[in-house]
Amino acid sequence: MTIRGAPAIGVAAAMGLALAAKRSKHGDTMLLLLDLEKAAEIIRATRPTARNLFWAIDRMLRKAREAGDKGLDIRETLVAEAELMADEDIQANRKMGAFGAELIQDGDTILTHCNTGTMATVSYGTAFGIIRSAIAQGKKVKVIATETRPRQQGARITVYEALADKIPTTLIVDSAVGITMSKGMIDKVLVGADRVTRTAVANKVGTFMIALAAKHYGIPFYVAAPSTTLDLTAEPTAISIEERDPREVTEIGGRRITPKGVNVFNPAFDSTPLELVTAVITDKGIFSREQIHNMTKI
Amino acid sequence: MTIRGAPAIGVAAAMGLALAAKRSKHGDTMLLLLDLEKAAEIIRATRPTARNLFWAIDRMLRKAREAGDKGLDIRETLVAEAELMADEDIQANRKMGAFGAELIQDGDTILTHCNTGTMATVSYGTAFGIIRSAIAQGKKVKVIATETRPRQQGARITVYEALADKIPTTLIVDSAVGITMSKGMIDKVLVGADRVTRTAVANKVGTFMIALAAKHYGIPFYVAAPSTTLDLTAEPTAISIEERDPREVTEIGGRRITPKGVNVFNPAFDSTPLELVTAVITDKGIFSREQIHNMTKI
Repeated sequence: MTIRGAPAIGVAAAMGLALAAKRSKHGDTMLLLLDLEKAAEIIRATRPTARNLFWAIDRMLRKAREAGDKGLDIRETLVAEAELMADEDIQANRKMGAFGAELIQDGDTILTHCNTGTMATVSYGTAFGIIRSAIAQGKKVKVIATETRPRQQGARITVYEALADKIPTTLIVDSAVGITMSKGMIDKVLVGADRVTRTAVANKVGTFMIALAAKHYGIPFYVAAPSTTLDLTAEPTAISIEERDPREVTEIGGRRITPKGVNVFNPAFDSTPLELVTAVITDKGIFSREQIHNMTKI
Repeated sequence: MTIRGAPAIGVAAAMGLALAAKRSKHGDTMLLLLDLEKAAEIIRATRPTARNLFWAIDRMLRKAREAGDKGLDIRETLVAEAELMADEDIQANRKMGAFGAELIQDGDTILTHCNTGTMATVSYGTAFGIIRSAIAQGKKVKVIATETRPRQQGARITVYEALADKIPTTLIVDSAVGITMSKGMIDKVLVGADRVTRTAVANKVGTFMIALAAKHYGIPFYVAAPSTTLDLTAEPTAISIEERDPREVTEIGGRRITPKGVNVFNPAFDSTPLELVTAVITDKGIFSREQIHNMTKI
């Protein structure tokens, strides 16, 4: 989780493969491609939940093979491709921002979970990029940020980015989402995604419970995801959820917060059934849950 | 929140009034009663959510007036009454434990929120007392404890009590309840209450979102509450929710976890609609939500 946020992870994986190509000692194309595949395997295992990771690695490997077939310089090709992907991510975020901003009304208060801003992407942000776009259109928008235990990306990163942009922001603990909604303080929920399938959205742990509360109160629940995060296989399988170090739960800032000897279950993500999602905002447009469910490509 | 847990708060309030009587310099009954009413007003304001606080104060004031009318020693009467209430609390917890244990099957894994054990009551516990009773019956029970931000009573106190009793316990962050349920890891939810009305249950913030997730998965959601926590007025009003110091959210163990300048909303409790509650376990029996809704006295 040194690099986090699905789009940032995808581009970082691409850059990792470009680096692996540069570091490989093999002049022979076949051996260089083997080195790349080994590196890809290691990188894939770092975040099984993130759709963008797999997408980026597949694209880079395909590009490497094509370059090899055509007798082009594989190393140069991969560096150029990784740079192109970084540019594309910024463009995708800006397009997503433009589409998503149309859903935001002047005066809206938007709940967001985890961090989806500059520090989760190459730049600009997904869900947070949409908030930025709405504000750039002159709309007054307030943000309610969840702390996002265990790693507190909301309290640490989203709050930091919001304060830097002078966006009025209120921090709540994750479990206060329900009562905050009950008081009519939230108009819309806007979260990112690590993977969107035709039946569910994988995102930071806690997203699912926020979606349940939004459903209870009839509050729109939007997912912002670049099209590279969509995994539209015909038969979606259950999303693999990464379990992480128990110390993320038992320690905060290196200090222990619970007695020693307790077991810990620390899933980093959860899966929100698509029926709780109002719409998915992508760089190619806004799609209702019905549209996502019936999509086979984007 | 130096003293926490609705039953402990009630008994502490009673002892506070006994102490106020002992400290009053007035020999005159009328003036002594006035001193007690002033003390009662101060104590009432400490935790507006806690039903037991109001119940205990009313009972003590009534007892003081009766003793005055009969020419009895008000100070001695109040000390005896407070001690009686402490004994009654332990008895109520044991009865609740016996009733509630019948709902627990051998092999159950029970999710609990916040702390409802020895340190929330005079002794034994409400929800946690029921778990203790089931184990005393020879049932194998596992506990999943939520951290319970902001004050982490689950991670600090429930885990401590469970480890001391050698109950197999797993700690999760509050927002992991949904995915933990989705994996079939939770058989029942058992929480305490600060106030139960004919339409809602006030309890530690986060209870409401746990109840929504339990409903989604059809997992029984039980509330353990001594009958003194029930507030069966004919027309229940919305439960007043205490907001607490923002530093409970922005600091952990005295260390700041979020940038300065952010607003904070820190409700200490929330209100769970009665329709999400399977049953309320009291010292006078187990009551379904329909029974609670139609009750006018217990």
